[in-house]
Amino acid sequence: MNRRAFSHQLVTALGAFAMAPSASRFYAPAGRADVPRTNGDRLNLHLRELAEFGKNPQGGVSRVGYTDADKQGREYAMRRMREAGLDIRIDTAGNIIGRVAGSDQRLKPILFGSHIDSVPEGGNYDGTLGSLSAIESIQTMRERKIVTKHPLEVVIFQFEEGGLYGSRGMIGALAEKDLGLVNWSGKTIRDGIAFIGGDPQRLNEAKRQPGDYAVYLELHIEQGGTLEQRKLDVGIVQGIVGVYRWEVTVDGFANHAGTTAMADRHDALLAAARFIDMVNRTVTSVPGRQVGTVGKIQISPNTPNVVPGKASLSLELRDLDAAKVTSLLETIRREAQAIASANGTSIRIEPISANAPAMTDARVRRAVGETAQTLGLKSVELPSGAGHDAQSMSILAPMGMIFVPSVGGISHSPKEYTSPGDCVRGADMLLNTILRLDQMDWSRPAST
Amino acid sequence: MNRRAFSHQLVTALGAFAMAPSASRFYAPAGRADVPRTNGDRLNLHLRELAEFGKNPQGGVSRVGYTDADKQGREYAMRRMREAGLDIRIDTAGNIIGRVAGSDQRLKPILFGSHIDSVPEGGNYDGTLGSLSAIESIQTMRERKIVTKHPLEVVIFQFEEGGLYGSRGMIGALAEKDLGLVNWSGKTIRDGIAFIGGDPQRLNEAKRQPGDYAVYLELHIEQGGTLEQRKLDVGIVQGIVGVYRWEVTVDGFANHAGTTAMADRHDALLAAARFIDMVNRTVTSVPGRQVGTVGKIQISPNTPNVVPGKASLSLELRDLDAAKVTSLLETIRREAQAIASANGTSIRIEPISANAPAMTDARVRRAVGETAQTLGLKSVELPSGAGHDAQSMSILAPMGMIFVPSVGGISHSPKEYTSPGDCVRGADMLLNTILRLDQMDWSRPAST
Repeated sequence: MNRRAFSHQLVTALGAFAMAPSASRFYAPAGRADVPRTNGDRLNLHLRELAEFGKNPQGGVSRVGYTDADKQGREYAMRRMREAGLDIRIDTAGNIIGRVAGSDQRLKPILFGSHIDSVPEGGNYDGTLGSLSAIESIQTMRERKIVTKHPLEVVIFQFEEGGLYGSRGMIGALAEKDLGLVNWSGKTIRDGIAFIGGDPQRLNEAKRQPGDYAVYLELHIEQGGTLEQRKLDVGIVQGIVGVYRWEVTVDGFANHAGTTAMADRHDALLAAARFIDMVNRTVTSVPGRQVGTVGKIQISPNTPNVVPGKASLSLELRDLDAAKVTSLLETIRREAQAIASANGTSIRIEPISANAPAMTDARVRRAVGETAQTLGLKSVELPSGAGHDAQSMSILAPMGMIFVPSVGGISHSPKEYTSPGDCVRGADMLLNTILRLDQMDWSRPAST
Repeated sequence: MNRRAFSHQLVTALGAFAMAPSASRFYAPAGRADVPRTNGDRLNLHLRELAEFGKNPQGGVSRVGYTDADKQGREYAMRRMREAGLDIRIDTAGNIIGRVAGSDQRLKPILFGSHIDSVPEGGNYDGTLGSLSAIESIQTMRERKIVTKHPLEVVIFQFEEGGLYGSRGMIGALAEKDLGLVNWSGKTIRDGIAFIGGDPQRLNEAKRQPGDYAVYLELHIEQGGTLEQRKLDVGIVQGIVGVYRWEVTVDGFANHAGTTAMADRHDALLAAARFIDMVNRTVTSVPGRQVGTVGKIQISPNTPNVVPGKASLSLELRDLDAAKVTSLLETIRREAQAIASANGTSIRIEPISANAPAMTDARVRRAVGETAQTLGLKSVELPSGAGHDAQSMSILAPMGMIFVPSVGGISHSPKEYTSPGDCVRGADMLLNTILRLDQMDWSRPAST
């Protein structure tokens, strides 16, 4: 479909929109009036309905991948996808994929979606908003009789929270040892994939190649507090930060806490404490949004009357710029030496894992920014500190993400909250960005 | 017996000594020659023999109170006590008490001894040296036909390492709730006392009153490194430090380690780390031998990718001067407030237990110092950083302790080591200090 045909359809759609029940209950429409809007009431109803599967007594959900609640949630999502007019299938990796045809047979599909599984005692928005907004976008287009040039595929990735298992299946990055892991559900990944309708024996059939999709887009809650603090509507994601982990081991000497003079101690916990404070000082000593965390500590013998002889810590650094992480680690290693020398301990820092940053495509970022402007929404570019299936998809296609505010920056918690208005603004952003991406030429390679 | 009679006996004893096989194999005799010496070969043989009960494959012993190894060790000690001429009994609290009469019926007994139980994977000297040296002192006196004016009682306290249970039984400080505790052995204290031949139903019969003993003396390894570092032979113990414990709780807010900006974190582990460093700084900022330890830490959720929301720490301060501990805690509380404010966490410091310092008697310290001089040994006054049954005994009588060097200051470990020479010097110190205390008037109250 050429641009003129599309404009015609937009006008038709806007006619339908004018007759629709108030889709703008949650926010005052701003910006240009000639853009389609999703049905906000319906989106928020679907969010509430999906929240019933795995609902926690104290709020939020525990809809862990491969559990009965997950399966029920997936069945709910498939009903909504069918209602929206999507042809659905479950790929052999267990991902749900729904498709509507485009008007130009030569074009690759635009892929968009998210996940609906949660962490144990998680919230109602992480993944869910992006998934249901993708379905809502399709339904809105159908109702407004918008037909895109590109085919559209809505994807609901399986077990994102466990470790991006669905999207990794789609890029052929599930090894034998991954399949044997037992995660929260109590099932191995292999059994879990079979449980939700995939086929772990034929995983290779789920594998997609670079170039199989025109572009990938995902709407998600920010999970951080930047948008809320700065009173902004939309985050244009610059990329998904690299996540680098180390195991830090402090060796001292356990001794009697009463008889060992302060000067004679080789206190592993004291060195560990100074290390933790130093990591914080180092990470915050340079400008930028990099983060550094010591989230785990184990000491031995761990009793009040013995000077600790050993400590094990986790160290995690995240940033969009791998070179900055390297430079921070250099400083941390140097300072750790000084800390160890000071009380006669030793500190070893050993790499555990390194996930490189996944940058979004500059053209997608521009499209998101322009869509926000069109919708009268205030946006900012920011990194994603959390991992997302979008990072797997960046292997296959130019990739982009849209964030909406998380109240208090809280996620992975029953307290996770994004207002109904922000949910609808997110769905509108998704819908209109998809329509904008559909007008663009994705035959050129990705550019970050 | 008056002084002249004693001197006569000493001369007799020295005659016997001159004929004895070399008791000085482990050290060159120094100081005055006219003092009795223990049989060093025999003492070290007995140390090796006792070390067989509960022997660890990797060295040291696990002779935990109320285990079969403990019972076998006690039977071995009772055989040695009988051989030394002691009349032995087990009191209802399970302590082994051996007695030899003195020449003056009006005098209260001099009590001395230690314990033979160990921590799990403990060493061969903690408690054992003081116990076997006490028996060796009696045997030496018997062989040298020394009869003291005071009756002498050798005590082997039960389950010292578990929490001074035997000596607490002797001062009536075992409450019902103590008897119900299950310690390392898997037995309750009540069942353990019965297991080793005590009678938990008649504990009150084990109770002694202030004034029941003339004086209490205990030989022990230092468990710290002062004597070895300063190349000294003997420690004259100033007192047993007070041990004060608190539970420290840091409340922050758990959040996503990727999406939560550094400035938005309320990291409980970071505050805990700064607290640990501050405790060390505070304790070492004033002169003296006080010690402060954070030996235990537990955090939640304790996973690499979540900013820690909560931390629990132990805090222990020890010193001979309770007022100094109070002043250190004041500083720690004040600094903790500043640390908590700095990253929006809270720090609670709640008392768990407080054991007041137990000072040694000035007359005993003088007697120990003079004995060291007589034996040509270099001595220094120092505190005991560890707890000992002597602190219970300070309730009943003027109390004193003698320390000998611990190599590397290591104890509660298979690596615990005191040289055979130092063991013999310790036994000689014990024997000769007892003989000196026997010449003194203990009808006056204790003075510290």
